Amino acid sequence: MDTIAPTVQAFDVMQADCPSRVVLQRIGDKWTPLVFQALKDGPRRFSQVSAAVGRVTPKVLTQTLRTLERDGLIDRRVYAEVPPRVEYALTGLGRTLLGPLDAVRVWAEANAAGILQARAAYDARGEGQPAG
Amino acid sequence: MDTIAPTVQAFDVMQADCPSRVVLQRIGDKWTPLVFQALKDGPRRFSQVSAAVGRVTPKVLTQTLRTLERDGLIDRRVYAEVPPRVEYALTGLGRTLLGPLDAVRVWAEANAAGILQARAAYDARGEGQPAG
Repeated sequence: MDTIAPTVQAFDVMQADCPSRVVLQRIGDKWTPLVFQALKDGPRRFSQVSAAVGRVTPKVLTQTLRTLERDGLIDRRVYAEVPPRVEYALTGLGRTLLGPLDAVRVWAEANAAGILQARAAYDARGEGQPAG
Repeated sequence: MDTIAPTVQAFDVMQADCPSRVVLQRIGDKWTPLVFQALKDGPRRFSQVSAAVGRVTPKVLTQTLRTLERDGLIDRRVYAEVPPRVEYALTGLGRTLLGPLDAVRVWAEANAAGILQARAAYDARGEGQPAG
């Protein structure tokens, strides 16, 4: 007997109320891709993540890590040493996001020059306030 | 004679001063992935983009489109009709970003349920303010 599996499209970012839109925007957070890049080779301490990301305040980095932990994307591991050692690591779910984030990162690095050129050309045309 | 091609890594998002970091964060803008999704099948008028994206004010959508135009990712085409018709379309450079953005979108839609579950579990553990 042939069966036809139903096509389930439970989540759709083009539906304004869809939770996937919130997820998409979380991924698009300013620091998330950089934290993932900092953790992609293994667990890191807070100071290591901070150094790798750069230009992030401890408060904002703490908030970013906590948000990613709440989303199940990173683990916060506390080792009972003196002083206690705390490490952050991507979870299995988090690791599945490395590929998509890397595609965007590679694109950004490959096309940064072209975008800077486009901006300069646009500004030279003086189209800062196009009509309509 | 063997020659070794130098490895050129002109842009690196993990360098805090690198322009690619600005590009990465532009891509991560709240509305950019949704505008790209709205334009991926061809040129669209402002009202069509607005309807597809949803929940975006005209002011913010105008600013988003202008920023993407300045970055060379979309074209704004004005047709000399009465009234003038204005359409937005992805440029060649913009189309190269569809793949990476789509990878992130597909991931967000596929994993939204898992992330919602992780959040609920985190909140149930009452770890809102972990020490350290």
